[in-house]
Order: sequence, then structure tokens, then C-alpha cells
Amino acid sequence: MAIETPSPQQDAKDYDDLCEKLKEISTLNGISGLLGWDEMVMMPEGAADCRGQQKAILAGIIHDKATNPQLGELLQRLQTNGKTGDQIQSAVVREAKRDYVRNTAVPRKLAKRRAELETEGYTAWVKAREASDFSMFAPKLEEWVQLSRDIAKSIDPKRPAYDVLLDQYEKGMTMERLDQIFEQVEDGLVPLITKLREGTAPDTTVIAGEFDTAVQSQLCNDIVKQLGFELKRGRLDVSVHPFTGGSHPTDVRMTTRFKPDDLTEGLTGAIHETGHALYEQGRNLELDGLPINEALSMGMHESQSLLWERMVALSPAFSRFLLPRLQKAFPQLDKLTAETLWPAFNAIRKPSLIRVEADEAQYPMHIILRYKLEKGLINGSVKVADLPELWNQGMQDYLGCSPPNDAQGVLQDVHWSAGLFGYFPTYTLGAMYACQIYEAAKKAIPNLEDNISDGTFPPLRQWLNESIHQVGCLYPSSDELLLAATGKELEPEVFLEYLTSKFSKLYQV
Amino acid sequence: MAIETPSPQQDAKDYDDLCEKLKEISTLNGISGLLGWDEMVMMPEGAADCRGQQKAILAGIIHDKATNPQLGELLQRLQTNGKTGDQIQSAVVREAKRDYVRNTAVPRKLAKRRAELETEGYTAWVKAREASDFSMFAPKLEEWVQLSRDIAKSIDPKRPAYDVLLDQYEKGMTMERLDQIFEQVEDGLVPLITKLREGTAPDTTVIAGEFDTAVQSQLCNDIVKQLGFELKRGRLDVSVHPFTGGSHPTDVRMTTRFKPDDLTEGLTGAIHETGHALYEQGRNLELDGLPINEALSMGMHESQSLLWERMVALSPAFSRFLLPRLQKAFPQLDKLTAETLWPAFNAIRKPSLIRVEADEAQYPMHIILRYKLEKGLINGSVKVADLPELWNQGMQDYLGCSPPNDAQGVLQDVHWSAGLFGYFPTYTLGAMYACQIYEAAKKAIPNLEDNISDGTFPPLRQWLNESIHQVGCLYPSSDELLLAATGKELEPEVFLEYLTSKFSKLYQV
Repeated sequence: MAIETPSPQQDAKDYDDLCEKLKEISTLNGISGLLGWDEMVMMPEGAADCRGQQKAILAGIIHDKATNPQLGELLQRLQTNGKTGDQIQSAVVREAKRDYVRNTAVPRKLAKRRAELETEGYTAWVKAREASDFSMFAPKLEEWVQLSRDIAKSIDPKRPAYDVLLDQYEKGMTMERLDQIFEQVEDGLVPLITKLREGTAPDTTVIAGEFDTAVQSQLCNDIVKQLGFELKRGRLDVSVHPFTGGSHPTDVRMTTRFKPDDLTEGLTGAIHETGHALYEQGRNLELDGLPINEALSMGMHESQSLLWERMVALSPAFSRFLLPRLQKAFPQLDKLTAETLWPAFNAIRKPSLIRVEADEAQYPMHIILRYKLEKGLINGSVKVADLPELWNQGMQDYLGCSPPNDAQGVLQDVHWSAGLFGYFPTYTLGAMYACQIYEAAKKAIPNLEDNISDGTFPPLRQWLNESIHQVGCLYPSSDELLLAATGKELEPEVFLEYLTSKFSKLYQV
Repeated sequence: MAIETPSPQQDAKDYDDLCEKLKEISTLNGISGLLGWDEMVMMPEGAADCRGQQKAILAGIIHDKATNPQLGELLQRLQTNGKTGDQIQSAVVREAKRDYVRNTAVPRKLAKRRAELETEGYTAWVKAREASDFSMFAPKLEEWVQLSRDIAKSIDPKRPAYDVLLDQYEKGMTMERLDQIFEQVEDGLVPLITKLREGTAPDTTVIAGEFDTAVQSQLCNDIVKQLGFELKRGRLDVSVHPFTGGSHPTDVRMTTRFKPDDLTEGLTGAIHETGHALYEQGRNLELDGLPINEALSMGMHESQSLLWERMVALSPAFSRFLLPRLQKAFPQLDKLTAETLWPAFNAIRKPSLIRVEADEAQYPMHIILRYKLEKGLINGSVKVADLPELWNQGMQDYLGCSPPNDAQGVLQDVHWSAGLFGYFPTYTLGAMYACQIYEAAKKAIPNLEDNISDGTFPPLRQWLNESIHQVGCLYPSSDELLLAATGKELEPEVFLEYLTSKFSKLYQV
């Protein structure tokens, strides 16, 4: 058969066919999202096995569609021939191709072992953590390391394995770039953390006490609606672990949780989820169901939750907004002022052995430690058996404290038990993106902080919507999206300056 | 290729393959059930379009699997060769074959027109009912009649069209049998209804008043749990139209609704749904996902809801059970006795122009009128244009009242607007099955009525579970299931004797 030059009509038809296939996959993923939400929030406990079946069968159908050779041929033709110069179309084809390669590359045998190891790894980790004995988890971790290398190789044998893994969660990111970023963060933060230890910890007694969870919940619901969460296109419920899920930008479901003895956690948690939810509700419906309309990366999604949580809710301006609402809900707080609320709201509650309890300044060092260790595991420079010792040494060097046992050390996080190498860095990248995006928003929006004190959130929300949410993954990396949205690629010094200024004030050093 | 006698091994493999395919379809139908429940109970309004898409794409996938030629070949081989004599296996193949024929028989063109006409018909019916003008709905109904004949012919050209339609909802039922059943009912009921008109209507003032809906709801939830609804394998929620849905026997979701000025409706409605839910929760999990484990028919499912609603909840024995609970929830009812509660609970609240408001005695005549008219439409002996006049005449003859307009007459029900010919009879068949099944239960369970007064429901539930729920559609018709469960095929006189005895007492005639 002679090779013919395809007509523009054929190109357009191929593109339409592609979009139809992609939208079908997206719709099925939406159904899967609903099954997941329902499982966490609504499902009766006796239905667990049946839900597992439903998810597995649906996942199989999605996998078949996502790896269908016809889809591959369409993509091949469009990549070879599609020279329309249309930026959106090019990005759709690029992202779809990327997904197709990742979905088809992993051999069935490795995919099967991965699925099994998720359960085996988790079970071993739970037992090891209970016994606080890393050696019980080590064999599964060994296997995860080897399997992850094999999977990375099957996806792209030309690139370093860790880069391929990282790219799953943080599109376009590499070790080279990340080493550069994290080195700068480490150099700035380690001395700051040491200095803060000599400062005065913020006074949290001003917001200590017992707070009715129903009243907390009502206050929170009012606030998240004011921030912009739309109940017409979403739901608010309660679940054990707060999360944001749902089935579509018109069906975003967010959950919260409240504790009677902690006013901060419920409120900041709800605002964190609101950041994720605003991203989801804000996606561009004109590109509905196309991969370009997905969030760019884990880090970029996290940037939206952290922007609302840290840059907005933990700011002095928000303390001024919050104070009268808090006092109306809880009259016992009548002595509180915005000036005493802000430090109390920002204070950490426990020493920084545990990542999820760390404050904004210490958190990145938890991440950098994990990054160095997992990169070493995949590259072969770190042995599984040496992890506990390296962990404890790292904690001492970075944070000046050493875990008393494995459970509070190397075994504290679930991620490695599921083979999630390359995931940890996205937390801190998200925090840095949030900081840089917020600085750009401050320049773009006159009086942004006054807006926040007044409870006028639409200008910020709208700016984020146009700069981030609607853009989806038009760009192939966070650096390029940041360049478009803030005028610069990621600049760690923005983050360092923010932390230094904020924490020096908070700890009076 | 020579035809070889299949080995027993091949047969067993074919049967296993068949079961796997059927279970996959069943699981996908379960997901579809969850989407439907969520839409009615949880979904934010803005997600309606997206949910429509999700349902359509899932329905397409289910249709593809249900009409896959490989499934047809398996069924063909098993039907030809599968002489194992295993009763369950034979029934699975029979039911799967039945579904396959129905799913594949209807040409794409007719199926497409049917889907369109569901929307067009509904829209026309809503407008016609608002204007109380049958002529606005007549053209769509004409088309439904012709389309239904064509569909019936494509499914089975050898049988009368109405029989094929009826069989969709009430497996194994025919016009011949139904004419026989309904003639006997008509002969017994018309004189009874005439006689009741001379009696004294029950006194409903003893349960009139305002009743807090939260208290009603709590009372109802306690009662349905005592009846046997398991919250471990189901949920109770509130929705505009009460229904029972869900995704699996381990995930049965029931909804209720309460009105402050009506104590009866919420409670009897909840108990009605409990009957459906106990059937669903009671299905045989050893046959999970196989068609034999589905309810036999619409009428048989309705028999379970009506058994708990009418035979149990509306009995004098249940009034004795209910009285102290009702008085505890609503102390204003302190003058009520079980003897005054029973007639009040059974009384109709409005004249019998409207089917859904009719009492047990008048309801069957509403159904028989619809049955005769729709059978005539399909057979060609009734013209669409003549419907309103025939309707009004039938109401006068059967129930002694005539609708003042089309809205309260021929346009009152939604069913025909969706082309549901053959559906109406299942309501009254269900009532008759319920009556006969309950009579058999009374013989099988010593002191059943004392059990009900005491709130001891497990014996009845267990007997129904073994006799009906677990049996699924092992038998090819309700008559055969009734024969197995009650010792006789459907006997209309059991129903007539029950109604005559109950309503003579209720109306003191």
C-alpha cells in the first residue's frame, strides 16, 4: 500500500475520533470516582467485597479502552500528520500519547505483580509498623525497588528510572532539576530551623478548649461557601479521612472532619480541601473529558489546596476575617484578638518527628530526606537494609531530633508500601508553587490582603481560575505553567523568603 | 468441520465461561444502580447532564456485553449439549438465553426510536396532563402502540404481541391466563365495591393531626430495622419519591418520605419499601450475579412489598404492635386503641378516581380497566382516539365515579408515555400473590399473628426468604413458584375472600 499524504479532512476526523474515545474514558473514570467517594462516605460496610468487584471490573474496561490499538493508531497518525499548529489540539495529542505509552508499556506480568504487591506491601507495612520493626517490611520494599526499576525501564529505557517514576506524579520534573531546587531549600531552611529553636513558640492557649463539632461544622460550611465552593456542583460531607473526590467538575465532593478539642485542624483541613475542590470545579468545561483539562500534576493540585490553606487561611489577613465569625460561633473566645489568633492558628502542636504533623518550615526537610533516600534506593546507592540508620541520621541533621523507634521513623508513611516512589517531592513542590503563585496574585490583584480581611474572595478565585484551573495541562511541565502564570519558572527563594519572614515573626527571632 | 459430541469437560468450561460473562454484566448493572440511587438521593443538581452521559456510556457497554455473539454461541452450545440435568444450571441457561434473545432481537432502528420516544412521549404527556387535553398526547401514544407491536414481533413473531410485552414484566404470563384471573376478580369485586358504598367509612379522625416528621422518621427507622432491614448491608435515606435501589444484595438502599399531616403514608410507604428491600437483601449469594438470582418478575417483587405493607402492617395484629410505639412517639395519641387504630390506618383518604390513592379493594379495578384498554390498543380492537370515553365509561361501570377531566382520568399515569404496555397488571398480580403467599405462611408458621403483635418478625422473614427470595427465578413463571411455595397456582378466590372479609368488617356491611 502506497503512503498517501493525509487530507486535512482526514486529520479533522481523526482528531474528532480521538476526542470521542478520550471523553468516553474520562466519563468512565468519573464513574470510578463516584464509586470511590461512595465507598468512603456512604457505602454500608457489608458491601466492601462487592464494591471491590465493581471497581476491578470497571478498571478492566477502562484499561482495555485506554490500551486499545485503534487509539494508538489514531495517535500515531495525528502525531505524524497533525501539523495544524493548533496549540490545544497539539497538547491534547501530546497528553493522550503520554497516557497511552504509560498504559501500554508495562508488560502484563509486571502490572499483575504490581497489583499484588500493593496488597502484600501494605499488609507487611501495617504489621511492621505495629511491631515497630523495619526488618519485617524490608523484603517487600526490596521487591518494590526492583519492580519499580523494571516498570520504569519498560516505560522509557533511555531515561534514568527515578526520572520516569517522578514524571508519573510531577510531569516534566527530573532529578537534575529537583536536586537543584531542593539543595537551595535545604541550604536556606536548615539554619532557619536551628534558629527557630531558640525562639519563643507561639501561644496556643488562647484557642484551647472544647468546641462543639456541629458548630465547627456549620462555621466551616459557611466559610467554604464564602470561599467559593459551589453546592450546586458539589457536596460537603463528613468522612474519617478528609478528601476531595467526585465524578466531574459539576460533581465535586469534598469531605471534612472535626475534633472537639482542636479548632485548627477541622478548619484548616476544610480550607485545604476547598483549594482542591475549587480547582476541580474550575476546570474548563469547553475541554471537558480531554486530558488537557486534567490537573497538570500532583504538585500543581497540591499548590491550590496549600494556597488556600497556608497563603490565605494562615495569613494575618484571614485571622482578621475569621475572628468575628469564630467568636460568634464560640462566645467563650471573647478575649481573642486577630493578633493572638494568628500565631496560635499557625503553631505546631507536636514535635516534628512525624511529617504530617510538621509545620510549614519543617515540612520540606521531611520531604527532602525522603527524596534523597528513595532516589538512592532506585539508583542503587542506598540499600534497603541501611534505611533506618540513614533515616535517623537525616532527622538529626535536618531537624535536630531522632526517632525513638522505626514506627515513628522510617515506617511512619504508607507511600513506599504501595511503591509510590517519586510522590513525596510533590508535597513540597506544591507548597513552593503555592507561594510563588500567591506572590503573583498579590501583584495582579490590588489590595488582595484587604480583600481577604473583608471576606471578598472572588478576585483571587477568578485569577487562579484563569491562571491555573482553566489552563489544565496545556503546558508540559509546572515550570512552564509557572512561567505563564507568574512570569518565572519555579524560584525557591520566593518560598524561602516567605518562610523566613513568617517564621521569624512567629517565633520572635 | 465435522460435528463432534462435546465432552463433559467442554460443557463445564462453557458453563463457567457463561457464568463469568453473566456476573460481569450483573456487576455493571450494579454500578448502574448506584448511579441511579445517587442521582435521586445525593447528586448536586448541576451534575445532571454529566450523570446522563455516565449512564448512557455505561448502558452502551452493558448492551455490547449482553449482545456479544460469543455469549450467544456459548448459550447455543449449552442449550444444545448441556444435558447435565442440574436444575440450577438449566435455569441459568434458560434465563440467560431469554435475556440474550430480548437484547439482540430488537433492531437498532427500533431501539433508537424507542429511546427517543421515551423522552418525546414523556414531554408530550406532561404538557397534555397540564392542559388536561388527551389529544395533545394521542399522536405519541399512537406511535408507541405501533412501535410496541413492531418490537414484540421482532422478539417473537409467533406469539401475540401483547403476550410478548406482558412477558417482559411478568415472566410466563399470557393474556389467556390473565383474562381468566381478572374476570374472576372483576366478578367478585364489582358487587363488593357497590355494597361497600352503603357501608360506613372508617373513622380517620383518631389519627388526624400534626406529627413531627423527624419523630415519624425515627419511629419508622426503628420499625424497619425490627422488621429485618439490615443497615450493615443497606442504607436508609430520604427522597422525594420513596424507592428501593442500590447496587447489590449487600448494598440495598431504601428511601422514605414523611408528611407532617399524614401519619399513615410515611409509615406504610416505609414498610412497603422494606418488603422490596428484604427481597433484595435476601437474595442467594451463592448464586450471586447469575440471572437465576434475580427476582422472578415485577409482580413477584411487588408481592413482597405488598405482603409487608398490606398483609402485615395493615392487619389488626400489627395495630396491636404499633399502638404503644406510636403513643410513645406521639403522646397526643393517648386515647387511641388498637381497635380504633386499625380501621383508621386502613381507610382511604380520597375518592377513588386516582389509582395511586385507591384502597386495596378498589385498586384492582383501576388495573383491570387499564389492562383491557392497553390489550385492546395492542390488539387493534381499541383506537387511541376512543380512549378517554372508554376510560370514563369503565370508571363508571367499575367504580361508580367518572373523572371530571382527562388529567384525573386517562392522563393520570405516566406508564403509557414510556411505552410500558404490560406493566400495570403486575401491581394487582403482586397483591394477589402477596395474599396467597401470606395465607401459606400462616399455615406454615404457628401463631404468626401473635408473632406480629409481639414484634417477632424473624419467622415470617425467614419463611419468605426460603420460599421466595432465595428461589429467585428458578421457576419460569409465578404460577410455578406459587405452586412450589404455597402448594397451588394463583387462585383469585383467596384474594377475593380476603378482601370481602376485611372490607365487610372495615365498612360494617
